[in-house]
Amino acid sequence: MTKVLAIGAYTEEEGAALAAAFECHPLAEEREIANLPHPLRAEITGVAYKGHQGFGAAEMAHLPNLRLVANYGVGYDSIDIEAASARGITVTNTPDVLNDDVADLAIALWLMQGREMEQASAWARSGRWAQEGEYRRNRKLSGARVGIVGLGRIGREIADRLAAFKCELHYHARSEKETPGWRYHADPVALAEAVDVLFIALVGGPATEGYVSKEVIAALGPRGVIINISRGSTIDEAAMLDALEAGELAGAGLDVFLNEPQIDPRFYALPNVVIQPHQGSGSVETRAAMARLQRDNLAAHLSGAALLTPVN
Amino acid sequence: MTKVLAIGAYTEEEGAALAAAFECHPLAEEREIANLPHPLRAEITGVAYKGHQGFGAAEMAHLPNLRLVANYGVGYDSIDIEAASARGITVTNTPDVLNDDVADLAIALWLMQGREMEQASAWARSGRWAQEGEYRRNRKLSGARVGIVGLGRIGREIADRLAAFKCELHYHARSEKETPGWRYHADPVALAEAVDVLFIALVGGPATEGYVSKEVIAALGPRGVIINISRGSTIDEAAMLDALEAGELAGAGLDVFLNEPQIDPRFYALPNVVIQPHQGSGSVETRAAMARLQRDNLAAHLSGAALLTPVN
Repeated sequence: MTKVLAIGAYTEEEGAALAAAFECHPLAEEREIANLPHPLRAEITGVAYKGHQGFGAAEMAHLPNLRLVANYGVGYDSIDIEAASARGITVTNTPDVLNDDVADLAIALWLMQGREMEQASAWARSGRWAQEGEYRRNRKLSGARVGIVGLGRIGREIADRLAAFKCELHYHARSEKETPGWRYHADPVALAEAVDVLFIALVGGPATEGYVSKEVIAALGPRGVIINISRGSTIDEAAMLDALEAGELAGAGLDVFLNEPQIDPRFYALPNVVIQPHQGSGSVETRAAMARLQRDNLAAHLSGAALLTPVN
Repeated sequence: MTKVLAIGAYTEEEGAALAAAFECHPLAEEREIANLPHPLRAEITGVAYKGHQGFGAAEMAHLPNLRLVANYGVGYDSIDIEAASARGITVTNTPDVLNDDVADLAIALWLMQGREMEQASAWARSGRWAQEGEYRRNRKLSGARVGIVGLGRIGREIADRLAAFKCELHYHARSEKETPGWRYHADPVALAEAVDVLFIALVGGPATEGYVSKEVIAALGPRGVIINISRGSTIDEAAMLDALEAGELAGAGLDVFLNEPQIDPRFYALPNVVIQPHQGSGSVETRAAMARLQRDNLAAHLSGAALLTPVN
């Protein structure tokens, strides 16, 4: 008898699909694992993970027969991969199915920020358009010099879209990639110096913590704009807030934050920052595809077939 | 001695550039022409037009030696071209320099509307993200079936960008055009039936009034979205409002309205409509290029050189 532990806030539909497919025990939060009766814990061989607190060695220790943690999402920085590998536990994620959505949101953040569309909307809705005339001029976006930090699958989707906006494309990654002539920068500071907009498409986790450093932000300069759809941790957020408040950075479009959803209230006072509630992959269609891929990995595990998208 | 009459709300910078280049007389509104002293009116051979009330046979009749109306903007539906031609007056506009900006705004309206970014922003800023959890799921946009009504220069810029979002492209125009395989529909209703999103990129004026008719809107259907960056007049606005209020149309992203800036207040009550204050060409860079092209047409006229962008 093997069971699946479903951790996190699943929608009713997702929960029903998990219950229909598996002997499934739902759990709102990671910390409740310790309170489960021991016989149940021993039966669990797979976890359907959608938690936020983190899933590390301590959580794994409560589940002696755990073999798979199937993450809901492409970023698995909440899961301790090293601890999992040491225990012989495989981790899977949901790559690719969300690339389009996340790239779409990145482009939207860039356009909204540069064309000041939230403020322009408020200008029309408040009656100022009728009373005071046209909204103030803002910034031309097509043809901009843009840099991508992290040219993985999502970074590439962003770059492909930006190419249609006639942008001059630069990127930084661990190594040079095959591209249609996009310019590689081995140093992120050199990348930031060469462009006006920086799209952050790094993976999360300790290796990229604060990767967009105070120096990178300074190199971007007072006309610079940062678009982040990766993880809040990839940017030195305090340095970015300082630069935004001091006018040393022109603006930002952010879907991700440190300590989200309790984000730093300093962001709210900055009219040049577009804020989104981490909804990069948030379309009905994409979330359904992510939930399906998570279940498919669990089903493969239970039937002894090859996992679809293992990460370790 | 020839003079230029500058009609409309120019910025300080634009006014100074006009004054530096020409013997220029500024005028806030068209209706003031009649009050100018006759000797001044007789000296005016060129008009730098940025008005909103309209420039027709009556206005032209006050200016006996008028030869050029240089419009600020690509759309010249406020100017009576027939009356101008009958008087031997040439009209110029400012095409092409604004295509990128307008196409950028069209894409932004589409993304903001579909991904509900204004509401998601409010969700984060109001604290509901922290208190109630993630924002609701919305609509996948990349890969959508989209239709362009009017495949002129701006329509084509929109289509090129949508192609990078992997959209299935359809269009309607007076005649079939050379395209990279985009599907032509001779009938706008057939186009609307084939797609989920309709981008309106028609020219304004009497010929396209209400072109996006009640029938086109009905054919688009309850999952349909309208994006309009052309003129408010191109859509049967009352039919669109009825459909939006009745849930027979999923939403709209609009930069242009009938009677703007006094737009129909029914729009304000619709959360699924993104409203912009006609800022399609509104970047600093593009407005500067438009003002320059307007001045270049006036300078060509005064020096007897060929006009750069005549429309009649």
